[in-house]
Amino acid sequence: MDNSLQRLLKKIKPLDESTMKAARARQDELTKPKGSLGLLEELSIKIAGIKGEVIPSLEHKAIVTMAADHGVVAEGTSPYPQEVTRQMVFNFLAGGAAINVLARHVGARVIVVDMGVVGGFEPHPTLICKMIDSGTQNMTRGPAMTRQQALDAIKAGSAVVEAEVTRGLDIIGTGDMGIGNTTASSAICAAIIGKPVSEVTGRGTGIDDRQLAHKVKVIEQALAVNQPDPDDALDVLSKVGGFEIGGLVGVILATAAHRIPIVIDGFISGAAALIATRLSPLSKDYLIAAHISAEAGHQTLLSYLGLIPLLDLKMRLGEGTGAALGIFLAETAVRVLKEMATFSEAGVSEKLD
Amino acid sequence: MDNSLQRLLKKIKPLDESTMKAARARQDELTKPKGSLGLLEELSIKIAGIKGEVIPSLEHKAIVTMAADHGVVAEGTSPYPQEVTRQMVFNFLAGGAAINVLARHVGARVIVVDMGVVGGFEPHPTLICKMIDSGTQNMTRGPAMTRQQALDAIKAGSAVVEAEVTRGLDIIGTGDMGIGNTTASSAICAAIIGKPVSEVTGRGTGIDDRQLAHKVKVIEQALAVNQPDPDDALDVLSKVGGFEIGGLVGVILATAAHRIPIVIDGFISGAAALIATRLSPLSKDYLIAAHISAEAGHQTLLSYLGLIPLLDLKMRLGEGTGAALGIFLAETAVRVLKEMATFSEAGVSEKLD
Repeated sequence: MDNSLQRLLKKIKPLDESTMKAARARQDELTKPKGSLGLLEELSIKIAGIKGEVIPSLEHKAIVTMAADHGVVAEGTSPYPQEVTRQMVFNFLAGGAAINVLARHVGARVIVVDMGVVGGFEPHPTLICKMIDSGTQNMTRGPAMTRQQALDAIKAGSAVVEAEVTRGLDIIGTGDMGIGNTTASSAICAAIIGKPVSEVTGRGTGIDDRQLAHKVKVIEQALAVNQPDPDDALDVLSKVGGFEIGGLVGVILATAAHRIPIVIDGFISGAAALIATRLSPLSKDYLIAAHISAEAGHQTLLSYLGLIPLLDLKMRLGEGTGAALGIFLAETAVRVLKEMATFSEAGVSEKLD
Repeated sequence: MDNSLQRLLKKIKPLDESTMKAARARQDELTKPKGSLGLLEELSIKIAGIKGEVIPSLEHKAIVTMAADHGVVAEGTSPYPQEVTRQMVFNFLAGGAAINVLARHVGARVIVVDMGVVGGFEPHPTLICKMIDSGTQNMTRGPAMTRQQALDAIKAGSAVVEAEVTRGLDIIGTGDMGIGNTTASSAICAAIIGKPVSEVTGRGTGIDDRQLAHKVKVIEQALAVNQPDPDDALDVLSKVGGFEIGGLVGVILATAAHRIPIVIDGFISGAAALIATRLSPLSKDYLIAAHISAEAGHQTLLSYLGLIPLLDLKMRLGEGTGAALGIFLAETAVRVLKEMATFSEAGVSEKLD
């Protein structure tokens, strides 16, 4: 494996157990029945362990939305034309997409990254250009990208995080845009988890039964043609992945290396997490699953990662929209830890034995 | 029935169907696959119908947390001493409770109301005193309150809303504090829904199997002694209810009369909603269920009301903590409707036919 990737993986350390213990002890002293804030309590303790702070601060919030195109759309797996990827990037830059609205609402900045959108972009003050290539190759005919491109995508994602850490970063959400990327993500899911394609393939932006059956066949063909090796995550990424997925792998790994919590969005971010956690099993502890999306296969993916989603709002939009809501809940959780009074401070009687 | 209550009930009107249709049409024009924001889209449409505005505003947010004591605690149904109700009111006023933290986080003001806490309070600038009596009577020996007290509690809740509407109110969350109030709420639930007590009785602030069996017996005894008439909601409220529950009934009815959305919190607010919707079936359409709590019986209650909870964070704290998170999601939903670009505005291609 590449030396710089090896160095990145080595930087990822286990969570701080003693800090987690102290955060749990503090939760139990706050003026509420023990455990009565449910998943918010667990979340606050996890974030404490990630950051190594009993009362962590989540001042600087960001969502990184990575966009790229997919050669496999030539097989007709999506009901939207490929140009929508490019059009939606302009929508992100203009602030009119769902992710812009939700990010504003939770006080997170949106970082828009071109990882390989067909046609590319003129320089733009708020667009980060990390284009690996003008869309991936059609994976039903051969690898979606070269192994070097997969590596470059991961490094590009890592570089984006390094720049954001310099600006101030306490929590990150992952997001994606790419017509055809549920197809790539289902292929990754089937390859890594080893489940039948039909079990991990969904309707994406909205396809009917006939189109779904076709999508399953396309993915089965891509896997048959490429034979990705599940024990070699880079092989899986290069053969059936996407540039934005590779970029998100780099985001996850670099963010974990900085001991910063990562709120993963839906199915595409989950596919990136499958690759990232194969490369670094320790990175899994830095992940917060924002929600369970309506995309078939997402529950299988999260169960495989051992993550419990915070929300179930039947969303299936991507972009980082679920992650934005997850960031809000993470902030809620740490504010409880920081701002609630303890039983002794408030003079409230504890439970009778 | 009392004349002033009759007048209040008559003010509650159906939702505005034409506004809901227009809001749905707008959701479908926004730059995302139709329905891809799941429950948030439905929520925005419901709020539009409640307020009669295609793009509703939720600027003024409030959570009303009503506190009262319960005579039934003499039977030992709660592991916390009764004085905790009073102590927690002081905690609310000092800003150190979970509801204060969560309300601050979502930008909602907290309205603390004493509906009947044992011992009462000295005048306090931010405490609203609507004390009906110094705690209810022990419902295992007779009615928890008189029919007049039940009516007074509802009117007090209504008066709280009238004052808040004057200050500016676009959405309200309901909350409760009262040692012993899951016991009263389970009794209401069993009486109104007609399910066995054991099916709608849970562990409240945290009791073991033996204590739970005792709690079920206490509630069964209260129902046997009082024989509340399920067709007479005021009878149910007076015989096995609580003053804070009666106050919340008034909050729900008066808020619905003003065409303002009501985010109900957990099991206790749900019990108030059971009473309110028996008095005014139309008020049901104004309710948003924030979450499904960990309290047994809450799912039965919400299903009976036909409400789908937005969140499932295994919370069981009350105070309005779930409602605070629900208010955040409601605001998210209406901001999507207001701020997202349409396909034509953003120049994004729509789905291929």
